[in-house]
Amino acid sequence: MTRRVRVIGIGAGGPDYVTAQAVAALNSVDVFFAMDKGDAKDDLVALRREVCERFIDQPRYRFVELADPPRARDGDYHQAVADWHAARADVWARALTDELGDDGVGAFLAWGDPSLYDSTLRILDLVAQRVDLSWDVVPGITAIQALTARHRIPLNDIGEPVLITTGRRLRADGLTGASVVMLDGDCAFLDCPPDTRIWWGAYLGTANELLVAGSVGDVGQRIVDVRAEARARHGWIMDTYLLRPA
Amino acid sequence: MTRRVRVIGIGAGGPDYVTAQAVAALNSVDVFFAMDKGDAKDDLVALRREVCERFIDQPRYRFVELADPPRARDGDYHQAVADWHAARADVWARALTDELGDDGVGAFLAWGDPSLYDSTLRILDLVAQRVDLSWDVVPGITAIQALTARHRIPLNDIGEPVLITTGRRLRADGLTGASVVMLDGDCAFLDCPPDTRIWWGAYLGTANELLVAGSVGDVGQRIVDVRAEARARHGWIMDTYLLRPA
Ligand SMILES: C[S@@+](CC[C@H](N)C(=O)[O-])C[C@H]1O[C@@H](n2cnc3c(N)ncnc32)[C@H](O)[C@@H]1O
Ligand SMILES: C[S@@+](CC[C@H](N)C(=O)[O-])C[C@H]1O[C@@H](n2cnc3c(N)ncnc32)[C@H](O)[C@@H]1O
Repeated sequence: MTRRVRVIGIGAGGPDYVTAQAVAALNSVDVFFAMDKGDAKDDLVALRREVCERFIDQPRYRFVELADPPRARDGDYHQAVADWHAARADVWARALTDELGDDGVGAFLAWGDPSLYDSTLRILDLVAQRVDLSWDVVPGITAIQALTARHRIPLNDIGEPVLITTGRRLRADGLTGASVVMLDGDCAFLDCPPDTRIWWGAYLGTANELLVAGSVGDVGQRIVDVRAEARARHGWIMDTYLLRPA
Repeated sequence: MTRRVRVIGIGAGGPDYVTAQAVAALNSVDVFFAMDKGDAKDDLVALRREVCERFIDQPRYRFVELADPPRARDGDYHQAVADWHAARADVWARALTDELGDDGVGAFLAWGDPSLYDSTLRILDLVAQRVDLSWDVVPGITAIQALTARHRIPLNDIGEPVLITTGRRLRADGLTGASVVMLDGDCAFLDCPPDTRIWWGAYLGTANELLVAGSVGDVGQRIVDVRAEARARHGWIMDTYLLRPA
């Protein structure tokens, strides 16, 4: 008997992004494990519950909240993340053992797609070294797909590459070609030449969605303002953007 | 009255990748427009029809096949593509006018996500210059998400960027960091250092799915062989892979 764990991408937006495969997976789950998620917690927990309520036919599932071990904010970034993952793996291994029967099915709901800037799979790899388990992954619509769909634009120029990167790395590396920037709390696009084109979106696929497009010179400051205002109002923000050098 | 066109991403695999939003969109459509797709045509047409049959409740839709204008195979690549898009736009503008009533809803089903290496949105931009129309885009699961889900791996290293590129550009630019390679008919990974790690997948999310992972040195030739054999058997292949420098 092996405990089974499913990592289910639910899309980076409303429940409309949930796939048929995710619906089938959701309906197989006994226990949903969830982490505390800081500022966005209440809204993201509500969204998860909404997904479960909408798509699960015969509710017999439980939610189990996992305490999120603290993450070191100073020192080496990679070491801090590695330590944090190891601490999470301990918590998860214990929870899987305690909460899941031998033939139980547990799940982690991943925002967007589980493979993209998400630690779930990395932590499960560590958990699998401690606890006997089998797992599978259900892909989800990423914030990148949500961004391009809502702006109705291609991601790539014809036959050309696109970089997926973070605000931190955009600042460090500069803009080298078409780039999607995620995890940017700091409006790193302001460092780009003013004729760089930007397509920006926040709370994509939700009722609070915001979209701005133009050149960094024309709309950069507007994005900064819209972003600050929305963030203050909601208490959190998730935003992403595509940049194309002029 | 404006004709309405929906570009619906159906995911890069089986019908299980279709989202709730795509299902709602499919059910609103009067006419599905489809292009001839070369070697893979029969299988891709069958998949499209399977998606419609499975998810559309009250079938009242038609399929309209659009002749695909020929594409110049020599000369300048970008010019050839631009000419081909313009020729397609002519065909589409005529078809939308002829086949769709003033308040009709037409749709193009895009394999995977409509924004990724897909010309539909570019052509619609041209069509909109000729015909009065409104359109929206429904995102879909890309082959990238399918690849990482089936291999159960993260796309990015922690906080690190990932390049989405083509076989052609991988050969031209070399491997500069973690990269997903699409549209590679030529096994461009063979040019990478032998200790480069590769996660390869073909026909992802379908019954014919193939997965190989390892280092290029260890599994590169196996991928070449598996790929050639599968391609001969099915008459076509769609494959993609993630590379990570050692
Ligand atoms: C920890 S990453 C997770 C990404 C997720 N796994 C995905 O597939 O999109 C969170 C980042 O994704 C982006 N993001 C996620 N959902 C978003 C949304 N609905 N609107 C805008 N950006 C979003 C933001 O850049 C945010 O900083
Ligand atoms: C014209 S592009 C379209 C990509 C699509 N729009 C998407 O979102 O994945 C076709 C390329 O996508 C990749 N691809 C699409 N579907 C695939 C599948 N099921 N398995 C493997 N690769 C696939 C291959 O690299 C193929 O050459």
